[in-house]
Amino acid sequence: MSNVILLVSCPDKKGITSAITTFVYENNGNIIHADQHIDEQSNTFFMRIEWSLEGFGIERDEIKNSFADVASRFEMDWTLNFTDKKYRVALFVSQHLHCLYDLLYRYRAGQFNCSIPMIISNHSAAKGAADEFGIKFYEVPITKENKKDQEQKEIDILEEEKIDLIVLARYHQILTPEIVDKYENRIINIHHSFLPAFIGKSPYAQAYRKGVKIIGATSHYVTEHLDEGPIIEQDTVRISHRDVLEDLVRKGEDLEKVVLNRAIRWHLERKILKFNNKTVIFD
Amino acid sequence: MSNVILLVSCPDKKGITSAITTFVYENNGNIIHADQHIDEQSNTFFMRIEWSLEGFGIERDEIKNSFADVASRFEMDWTLNFTDKKYRVALFVSQHLHCLYDLLYRYRAGQFNCSIPMIISNHSAAKGAADEFGIKFYEVPITKENKKDQEQKEIDILEEEKIDLIVLARYHQILTPEIVDKYENRIINIHHSFLPAFIGKSPYAQAYRKGVKIIGATSHYVTEHLDEGPIIEQDTVRISHRDVLEDLVRKGEDLEKVVLNRAIRWHLERKILKFNNKTVIFD
Amino acid sequence: MSNVILLVSCPDKKGITSAITTFVYENNGNIIHADQHIDEQSNTFFMRIEWSLEGFGIERDEIKNSFADVASRFEMDWTLNFTDKKYRVALFVSQHLHCLYDLLYRYRAGQFNCSIPMIISNHSAAKGAADEFGIKFYEVPITKENKKDQEQKEIDILEEEKIDLIVLARYHQILTPEIVDKYENRIINIHHSFLPAFIGKSPYAQAYRKGVKIIGATSHYVTEHLDEGPIIEQDTVRISHRDVLEDLVRKGEDLEKVVLNRAIRWHLERKILKFNNKTVIFD
Amino acid sequence: MSNVILLVSCPDKKGITSAITTFVYENNGNIIHADQHIDEQSNTFFMRIEWSLEGFGIERDEIKNSFADVASRFEMDWTLNFTDKKYRVALFVSQHLHCLYDLLYRYRAGQFNCSIPMIISNHSAAKGAADEFGIKFYEVPITKENKKDQEQKEIDILEEEKIDLIVLARYHQILTPEIVDKYENRIINIHHSFLPAFIGKSPYAQAYRKGVKIIGATSHYVTEHLDEGPIIEQDTVRISHRDVLEDLVRKGEDLEKVVLNRAIRWHLERKILKFNNKTVIFD
Repeated sequence: MSNVILLVSCPDKKGITSAITTFVYENNGNIIHADQHIDEQSNTFFMRIEWSLEGFGIERDEIKNSFADVASRFEMDWTLNFTDKKYRVALFVSQHLHCLYDLLYRYRAGQFNCSIPMIISNHSAAKGAADEFGIKFYEVPITKENKKDQEQKEIDILEEEKIDLIVLARYHQILTPEIVDKYENRIINIHHSFLPAFIGKSPYAQAYRKGVKIIGATSHYVTEHLDEGPIIEQDTVRISHRDVLEDLVRKGEDLEKVVLNRAIRWHLERKILKFNNKTVIFD
Repeated sequence: MSNVILLVSCPDKKGITSAITTFVYENNGNIIHADQHIDEQSNTFFMRIEWSLEGFGIERDEIKNSFADVASRFEMDWTLNFTDKKYRVALFVSQHLHCLYDLLYRYRAGQFNCSIPMIISNHSAAKGAADEFGIKFYEVPITKENKKDQEQKEIDILEEEKIDLIVLARYHQILTPEIVDKYENRIINIHHSFLPAFIGKSPYAQAYRKGVKIIGATSHYVTEHLDEGPIIEQDTVRISHRDVLEDLVRKGEDLEKVVLNRAIRWHLERKILKFNNKTVIFD
Repeated sequence: MSNVILLVSCPDKKGITSAITTFVYENNGNIIHADQHIDEQSNTFFMRIEWSLEGFGIERDEIKNSFADVASRFEMDWTLNFTDKKYRVALFVSQHLHCLYDLLYRYRAGQFNCSIPMIISNHSAAKGAADEFGIKFYEVPITKENKKDQEQKEIDILEEEKIDLIVLARYHQILTPEIVDKYENRIINIHHSFLPAFIGKSPYAQAYRKGVKIIGATSHYVTEHLDEGPIIEQDTVRISHRDVLEDLVRKGEDLEKVVLNRAIRWHLERKILKFNNKTVIFD
Repeated sequence: MSNVILLVSCPDKKGITSAITTFVYENNGNIIHADQHIDEQSNTFFMRIEWSLEGFGIERDEIKNSFADVASRFEMDWTLNFTDKKYRVALFVSQHLHCLYDLLYRYRAGQFNCSIPMIISNHSAAKGAADEFGIKFYEVPITKENKKDQEQKEIDILEEEKIDLIVLARYHQILTPEIVDKYENRIINIHHSFLPAFIGKSPYAQAYRKGVKIIGATSHYVTEHLDEGPIIEQDTVRISHRDVLEDLVRKGEDLEKVVLNRAIRWHLERKILKFNNKTVIFD
């Protein structure tokens, strides 16, 4: 039996929580999780509430209509989600495959509530992994000259596959605004540094040159500004002067895997609310 | 203007959140924070809700009566707190003073919403600190023979000073059941290990002998079972074979300070709900 | 071209480092790494020194004889290793395969300087992984009745395969003293708790019941005492009241993978010196 | 009885370690610690070696001359230090006093092998602390107009006090090149961010606006480039959307204290070797 997840953000005023929870209660809903947050600077109210459809007094298809009254009263930005609606996820990857294998293993182990029908790559390196896990593999090589055309091809594939979420699991191409706009808030990237430090190319080499004592990894939504989208998750690990560049890469890759994994999981569980250029994570 | 903090735990059923938030809303209350949690194993509902007294439609002294109806309907365990009611805190300490100084500095810097009228010690070492910070100092030396009498003396002092919370900031005496029962859920200890590892005496020496690669500190409520009360907070730090026992002590003391500080802060902000032998922390 | 790695422990006295480094220098060796450590409590000297065979003035097969003089002068416990001598590693696993997949992926990616010719399991669950990575799979089911015989069978296989190192990658059987003695200091286990807390069965469930705020994983050499062998590596991760048992398992598994990986790597790189029941890690 | 600490960096070639340790051994020295490191990129050799003066065959004042031969043979950059030579440390502070109190408490507890004769501040806020700990307090207010003169006054005081190390314990003034050059590698700053992220003013506010999930603190040597000197130590702590700016400040201040403390300790113990714009820490 599916649950309903309601995500809400709106200007804070009195009675919002009461209105929402009373809506659920009066229709005989059983609340399983409820989290709220108020951003005091902008006076914004955020809520994630999850209840069971079992015994709920409104038909699944009617909930949206029924809730619209409450929503408009408080000028809510809101989405209604059902946990049995699995997102369809496309993985983009280039030649570093550690994140890809990690995600595919977790996927096969049933850790992600989604389906992963396809992998896109500008290289052939990931083909073996795709075959191994029984996932369609689209090789779309990209050069300066053909970039626009090839990305259009990618968009066509994504639409044909009805993709809900794009994961850049170490995809070393900058996406054009066209695809970024089309999948706004639905493209998750892993960047191999503690952002905003070491934006752009070769962040491990940048970190090594700088002589930092700790390195990091950052997962974020992709926007038109390179490596500047809303941060979803970060983690760090200690290094020392004994670590050469290869050690940074090796230690960092372990971070990348767990950080990207958490970001995807939270997105799939509808636990992320974006506002301004930041995220609220109802973990 | 004070806020009201309502802490609730009860068997989970439909309508609890709605009932509570509607109570606040209908009396014109402005919710500032609301957190809830359901423990699925025991089917228990927990909530912490904080609203402003400003413009609230019920007199401060009447809120308890007014809410009693809602509370009894759901068989709630509940407490009503006001943020302008400062707890009175007693610090117990023996001869290691790092936690004491750390707490007193934070206290003087205005980081704790409480008053600290007194320090009790079985040694004279802390007298200088007490004088420096203008806090009453009670030296109550304890031997096997006089323990019962001396602890009675302590209880008398605590009652005279109307103490709400006892903090054992490295107090190396086991409290007798009498005082533990009297101040149930109101005695916070810092233990210098990552519990449940290394219970009892000399945990750093135990850790050193064992050859662990990480050490920790644990803050917990005191119960009649030594070092086994509900854990409030823990933290850990990495050590290596290069660290001798003195290094463990030094690194560990830095943990003790931050861990104890967080536990006290959460208690003062009424963010801790105890159930079974565990804690829910609404941080 | 191979390097030589000399591991030494002996009673500390004057001149040890000088004698060792002069031995290397006078034979025209180029030191690549040198680390030493003195345990002050037991007055023991430890050293790991690595130099290149390129241009070294003593034939590979003669180094041992040549160094024996120095070694006996200082009563050294010592081993001489060559980096081109790859250890042969056997993986033991039961039904939880996250560590196995993680190790196999790292192995295929060339991260381990070893060969992994075989997997042993008391279940069939890992057969698919073995096939996928082209590794021999021995299923050796174990019951109370047949344990002794089946373990003898395992020993026969290990000997036939000339195994140097056994990795228990979540192998849920207690090894008998026979195999433990035979492979002393050559069996690495991953235990899914922060040892010495939560020894034995179901450590995540134990941690959940206890209400700890941080969980851990521990890799150690196996001795005859369950979960009490010398600790090689540990790591920890924060949890909260919001995490149910399944969350602990999921978060903990990510720790297990990195902790076991580090322990194996250090063993393969001859970076571990055992003394008493502890380890010196020259990372 | 004092120890000798020799710090060496030079182009790597064969025989350096042998030459140094043989020098110590032949003069009957007892090595207490020895650490070396080779930076492979620049082919540079680094060593820190500590031995006891007890029974050493060369007079204290003659060691420098005796070692000069070895040093020149390998073109060493080197310093000879004696552990009974206590550095004289000046603390600079503005209005945030948490680091100052933390350092003074550790100092009084005997944790630092140095003397702290003086505090300089551009404000009067720290006067109370100085009095409390019996340390001279120089108030040197600085305006745009008088900056050059006032800094000259500071230099005069520092010289008069024979200061070896300057610690900027949250001193919110940019030092002029004059003082920076004069005390090259002898000025340690604490910056309240995870550098190189959030250089300059109000790093907590910058971090809050950016929406990072982890904040940090960094201790580094001061150079003429603001917040860009060689990093000595860093640490990080997790934050969430529930943390407002005040929480970042509070959590960050706990980091600042431990990070600055470690950096100072390593400097006092002569455990830091600088090369290029990075540090080797022989911890």
